[in-house]
Amino acid sequence: MLKKKLNVNKLLRKEVLNFEPYIPGKPIDELKRELGLKNIYKLASNENSFGVSQKVIANIPKIIKNLNRYPDSNCYILRKALSKKFNIPEKNFVFGNGSDEIIELLGKTFLNQSDEIIVSKHSFVSYKMSAAVMGAKTKIAKMTKDLVVDLNAIFEQITDNTKLIFIGNPNNPTGTYIKRDDFIKFMEKIPSNILVFMDEAYYEFAKNNSDYPDSLELQKKYQNILVSRTFSKLFALAGLRLGYMIATENVIKAVNKIRLPFNVNIIAQNIAIEALKDEEHIKKTLAMVEYGKKFLYSEFEKLGIKYFKTAGNFILFDAGKKGGKRIFLELLNKGIIIRAVDEYDLKKYARVSVGTKTENENFIKALTHLYE
Amino acid sequence: MLKKKLNVNKLLRKEVLNFEPYIPGKPIDELKRELGLKNIYKLASNENSFGVSQKVIANIPKIIKNLNRYPDSNCYILRKALSKKFNIPEKNFVFGNGSDEIIELLGKTFLNQSDEIIVSKHSFVSYKMSAAVMGAKTKIAKMTKDLVVDLNAIFEQITDNTKLIFIGNPNNPTGTYIKRDDFIKFMEKIPSNILVFMDEAYYEFAKNNSDYPDSLELQKKYQNILVSRTFSKLFALAGLRLGYMIATENVIKAVNKIRLPFNVNIIAQNIAIEALKDEEHIKKTLAMVEYGKKFLYSEFEKLGIKYFKTAGNFILFDAGKKGGKRIFLELLNKGIIIRAVDEYDLKKYARVSVGTKTENENFIKALTHLYE
Repeated sequence: MLKKKLNVNKLLRKEVLNFEPYIPGKPIDELKRELGLKNIYKLASNENSFGVSQKVIANIPKIIKNLNRYPDSNCYILRKALSKKFNIPEKNFVFGNGSDEIIELLGKTFLNQSDEIIVSKHSFVSYKMSAAVMGAKTKIAKMTKDLVVDLNAIFEQITDNTKLIFIGNPNNPTGTYIKRDDFIKFMEKIPSNILVFMDEAYYEFAKNNSDYPDSLELQKKYQNILVSRTFSKLFALAGLRLGYMIATENVIKAVNKIRLPFNVNIIAQNIAIEALKDEEHIKKTLAMVEYGKKFLYSEFEKLGIKYFKTAGNFILFDAGKKGGKRIFLELLNKGIIIRAVDEYDLKKYARVSVGTKTENENFIKALTHLYE
Repeated sequence: MLKKKLNVNKLLRKEVLNFEPYIPGKPIDELKRELGLKNIYKLASNENSFGVSQKVIANIPKIIKNLNRYPDSNCYILRKALSKKFNIPEKNFVFGNGSDEIIELLGKTFLNQSDEIIVSKHSFVSYKMSAAVMGAKTKIAKMTKDLVVDLNAIFEQITDNTKLIFIGNPNNPTGTYIKRDDFIKFMEKIPSNILVFMDEAYYEFAKNNSDYPDSLELQKKYQNILVSRTFSKLFALAGLRLGYMIATENVIKAVNKIRLPFNVNIIAQNIAIEALKDEEHIKKTLAMVEYGKKFLYSEFEKLGIKYFKTAGNFILFDAGKKGGKRIFLELLNKGIIIRAVDEYDLKKYARVSVGTKTENENFIKALTHLYE
């Protein structure tokens, strides 16, 4: 028999009481169960549909034997590999259980209740969550008409309390990016003690654009730039959870102090090292996305659907009168999962990840049916 | 050229500035590199030296194919399996990137700056870290002479600000446990709105003691009991990071709100399901620890070394005049890694994990040399 009912709400931090959680897309297996469908094409989470490198998989047996041991807290070997790849000292890296965790760690490291962050209106929701959980305030900067991050609008939101600015580049869910010259102008005029977090989860898809900023190069001049990247997208390791941040040593030291000692699992560390080496897999993924983008652009045009050119592996498109949520639901019933972007304050739109040829074709087929 | 040097310390939360980080034991590979040793026996982190179940490993190829997809945020299948195993509703579970993360999440969910937690003097350091990072105060309760958690001493530390009490049961690093009757008396007399976190990382090694409390049963009466367990110890999956908490639904809901959506990687989820099924591996691990404990007890007695009977898979022993740190270093030079417990305020002692026959024998051989 219960002694006394626990009133949990009375015990919670007020930040938790008011917190609006992230609602993740449902996993494929769960939807199959719910909808009773056999085939489902998931184009909802900007994953790499091409899958994991076969060379990586071939190395799995080597990795398995140490699962009973705690992982290396410092990601020693992976750190060395990335340091060499980018020609950045090892001490400038910190690793997270996905870049999600890096974003959260920044909040915990830097944000007091009196502090403010600035985010763009239609950008990744985790940024404001990292502030909300610490009780810090989020100021929202409008974006341009073309849904590009508006650096002038961000600048206007700066106050004495601004500590951290989050910029997705390319930005999720719009796929747009800020250009090198604009970014440099911005870095020149903002106070140099405001941290500028460049979320470059989709960096590898964008970097061949000649006007895409080289944030690691710019970091040498502007020490307040923090750069985060991930193994979830190009490297197809979303299931393993591995992101990292490159920043000036003292920022890394501070984040490391409060980072949990074993936050990156041993398989993620070991597989990532292999994934970095497989140039062939990287090339094929980039080619798949390039091919898929062009196919989807051209099909959207045939259907008269407005879309935004993307520098990522996903496309934001106009969902017309129905709106994004309804398109999402109608496609879902046909076994195609895309992403409604209501939570990004973009109800008119929907986001589709660029998938394999089969996935893209099935998405377009189902979408076409909705317009008939 | 650098525009302006960033003064990071001025930007940090004061809780981070003052934070004392956890110093993890070094991984075997790193020590091999540093010491130039070929064989190293690691008995430092209470891992399962027996290794991962072969049945689990046989299932790896099945698991690998979905690494490019984000993991299930709710650990659907694992949740179902544990719910069935313990006969506890699915809604009463939350999963973490190791129980480390569960402990941290509790701090983030419940602890304001004015709140207090209570920990035992010689207990897992992560408890007080979860308070420190939130700016909450840690009150320390002495333990009994036999280094058992002293529930009366904890009771005496309770104030109007006490929100959370952390109890390791069995307690790390002492290996001692609190008894059912004492625990019930304690639960009866403390205010029912104080949360009591029972860290049962070593539960499976302890549960056959007839006076070990059945916390899941007691939870039906005392809703303020939170129980955490792990796959890192018995199940030999420390490298994968998977812990979980069982608590009343509203506590779970609150923690889930601020938990990162993809905190538990896909391999951990899938392997854990297999590990639960392998009764043979569980039996063999328990037998290994039982055998190893007796061997180590008897060898300690031969050497005249005082030790504490353990309900876990590790033993705290008296390091004599040299002290724990020196014994640790001298053994390290012989390729045996144990744990000095200075940070647990136990400088006179050291902790050794119960390993395989070979590991235990090599530890004793090296230890004996130190006493010659």
